[in-house]
Amino acid sequence: MGLRIGIDLGGTNLRVGLVNEKGQILNEQECPTEPQKGSDCVIQNMIKMIESVKGDKSIIGVGIGSPGPLNPKTGVIIEPPNLTGWSNVPIVELVSKATGLSVTLDNDANAAALAEATIGAGAKHESVFYITVSTGIGGGLVIGKKVFQGAQGYAGEIGNMIVNPNGRNHANLNPGALEAQASGTAISAIGREKLGITGGAAEVFRLAEEGHTEAKKLIDEALQYLAIGIANLAHSINPEVFILGGGVLKSEKQVLEPLREKVKALVYPGLRDSIQILPAGLGTKAGIIGAAFLAG
Amino acid sequence: MGLRIGIDLGGTNLRVGLVNEKGQILNEQECPTEPQKGSDCVIQNMIKMIESVKGDKSIIGVGIGSPGPLNPKTGVIIEPPNLTGWSNVPIVELVSKATGLSVTLDNDANAAALAEATIGAGAKHESVFYITVSTGIGGGLVIGKKVFQGAQGYAGEIGNMIVNPNGRNHANLNPGALEAQASGTAISAIGREKLGITGGAAEVFRLAEEGHTEAKKLIDEALQYLAIGIANLAHSINPEVFILGGGVLKSEKQVLEPLREKVKALVYPGLRDSIQILPAGLGTKAGIIGAAFLAG
Repeated sequence: MGLRIGIDLGGTNLRVGLVNEKGQILNEQECPTEPQKGSDCVIQNMIKMIESVKGDKSIIGVGIGSPGPLNPKTGVIIEPPNLTGWSNVPIVELVSKATGLSVTLDNDANAAALAEATIGAGAKHESVFYITVSTGIGGGLVIGKKVFQGAQGYAGEIGNMIVNPNGRNHANLNPGALEAQASGTAISAIGREKLGITGGAAEVFRLAEEGHTEAKKLIDEALQYLAIGIANLAHSINPEVFILGGGVLKSEKQVLEPLREKVKALVYPGLRDSIQILPAGLGTKAGIIGAAFLAG
Repeated sequence: MGLRIGIDLGGTNLRVGLVNEKGQILNEQECPTEPQKGSDCVIQNMIKMIESVKGDKSIIGVGIGSPGPLNPKTGVIIEPPNLTGWSNVPIVELVSKATGLSVTLDNDANAAALAEATIGAGAKHESVFYITVSTGIGGGLVIGKKVFQGAQGYAGEIGNMIVNPNGRNHANLNPGALEAQASGTAISAIGREKLGITGGAAEVFRLAEEGHTEAKKLIDEALQYLAIGIANLAHSINPEVFILGGGVLKSEKQVLEPLREKVKALVYPGLRDSIQILPAGLGTKAGIIGAAFLAG
């Protein structure tokens, strides 16, 4: 019946699910990842959870969605900022040897993109660009229901797209990278530095909604950079649909509506009426479901 | 033997060639386009040239590469700045009715991209992003030897990619669009405005080569914007290879070498050694050859 196991390896939680070909999760386990305990320990947990959700079922394969950077071709997790202390972990080889199952690795945004493009908001579309805006900004391009990884696996890594060459510095990204200008972390930092708001991005959004002029301006600027990123993708890839997920994009009225207007103002007239920007449809389950779809 | 007719419909010259499946041009005609005489007149010429290069050969189809904007799906040339006075010309229908041949339309950059990806500098690569820098800046994405047009035909339209939101205004493009910052027209205009150089982009390049400090700085800034555009594509599509064509990019030493260094400084460490930026291999013949490869 086409059963797969999907693994959402997050910096905070590790989720393992048994998923059928329709993308329904039949059985699921979740525990704190605790990456600081080391990759060996986390992978031991992961293997136990795989065996537990699998039971005596026959499985096509296991897919793992993980924070990057990672190499989907070699199956190695390189050195993700969100998995503290991990370095060059050959997770595909380790999990495959221990379970005897075929294992596939890709980054978490690509996994979520695949889920949304297959059974989520993009199910009816041939080409889908998924964007997640939360702590960071990630993305995934799906063409014909397959993740387009790019030659070295960097397709969709739009957090590092330059949207303002004179912009903010953030972590190891380019100055003025999209993630430095419009992520939850960026909104939180700008709010603290410029407005003395200490409650993070959520507080900035709350104040803006209550009419706080400076907070509104801050959100407006972040959305403008996000719109530049989307317009740039429209003029290079022109996917049928953009799907937006992640914590920062929850509000249709406060985020998606103004964002659509901003994008329209930045694209060629011939694209204005056809460009589609939709909210993600699967919520946090996209990670497990997409990881499963990556498998075998 | 797989013969096709490729048509390079330029603002200046109209070229029609009989092309075999290896991309060799067996027979070719060229005349001034004179678009101001009207689309009917130009298309009449085109039809005569098709019949002349075709002779009594059996033909798979006709491909036309034209300046955009155009709609490859409906076969209509919309309103190209480089074909003065043309408006919504149903060229595919007109040429197809007159010749009885199957006719395909795409923009000139996509045609050149297809030629380079098939028998030019990208022949060995699965995914190719072609960039042409001349009067304007255009691009084309080829995946698996097929042009990726995008949902509405706007894939590759990187002239309108924003590389500096506080940048220059140019024609109907976004402020700070790549074409406004780094095209031949932009280099020419900045040279005139800032340095009083009246000989166009070629003169700016010549002065820079002779050591003119301000001209060198101008070229350096234009190449920096081009590098931002390429890095942005690397972090969204990550094609195997970038191929650069067009008059502005002729000099390996003055343009391609510094451009490569700039791009390396803007991409993730994992891409620095693998990113490939190559000069186009087919010269002006890419237009006819690629147009032929578009055909049926």
